[in-house]
Amino acid sequence: MFSNKNLTISGKHMICDIKNIKNHTLLHDVIQIQEILDMICEKYNYTILGKLEHQFEPIGMTIMYLLSESHISIHTFPEKNFLALDIYTCREYPNNDTYLEIYNFIVGAFDADVEEPFIMNRSF
Amino acid sequence: MFSNKNLTISGKHMICDIKNIKNHTLLHDVIQIQEILDMICEKYNYTILGKLEHQFEPIGMTIMYLLSESHISIHTFPEKNFLALDIYTCREYPNNDTYLEIYNFIVGAFDADVEEPFIMNRSF
Repeated sequence: MFSNKNLTISGKHMICDIKNIKNHTLLHDVIQIQEILDMICEKYNYTILGKLEHQFEPIGMTIMYLLSESHISIHTFPEKNFLALDIYTCREYPNNDTYLEIYNFIVGAFDADVEEPFIMNRSF
Repeated sequence: MFSNKNLTISGKHMICDIKNIKNHTLLHDVIQIQEILDMICEKYNYTILGKLEHQFEPIGMTIMYLLSESHISIHTFPEKNFLALDIYTCREYPNNDTYLEIYNFIVGAFDADVEEPFIMNRSF
């Protein structure tokens, strides 16, 4: 998978384990998290074709967006001040700048530790 | 993200770019692909909490499963004999055997090239 020479890139997948979240209000607010994802989709022209969400008892949620461009998923673990984020799009970005911008926006919103997100090419 | 020492594993994420698919009938059959995913969820005790699907025109589909254990996504690109599969669960598997078993089952069903799937630990 990592010997990408001679392979056609089918998209970029950003995988983020976002830690040490200090905005606990946001971490528990499914509506507000969806507003943030909606805002990102609008700004970067990702077309939302479907949404799924589930709120776990007593805490934690999963939100999934089916995009024309692939998908976004978020799993929150408020008891760990943590969320797992995936953004996979088939956009032919020349570099990681757009994803890094989205990453920094989300980490800022959640007031979390800034780390280097893992961004990989998916290939046909 | 890759310096996993001292971090708690929050789950395992398998990322597969499945290439050179020769079972074209299956690649176009949203019902049959969901039957395969349902079978996997039943066999490995993944609890399905929601499903999303979209069939693109003229071809290609996305299927997303929201699991109690995290998620599964499939994006098919029949024109490339390709599909992109993600399985992320918060199961505390001691090794990759279960995922490799699932991978081999799916690659077998689609009659595709066997490669080494990329399996990463997600961490709190």
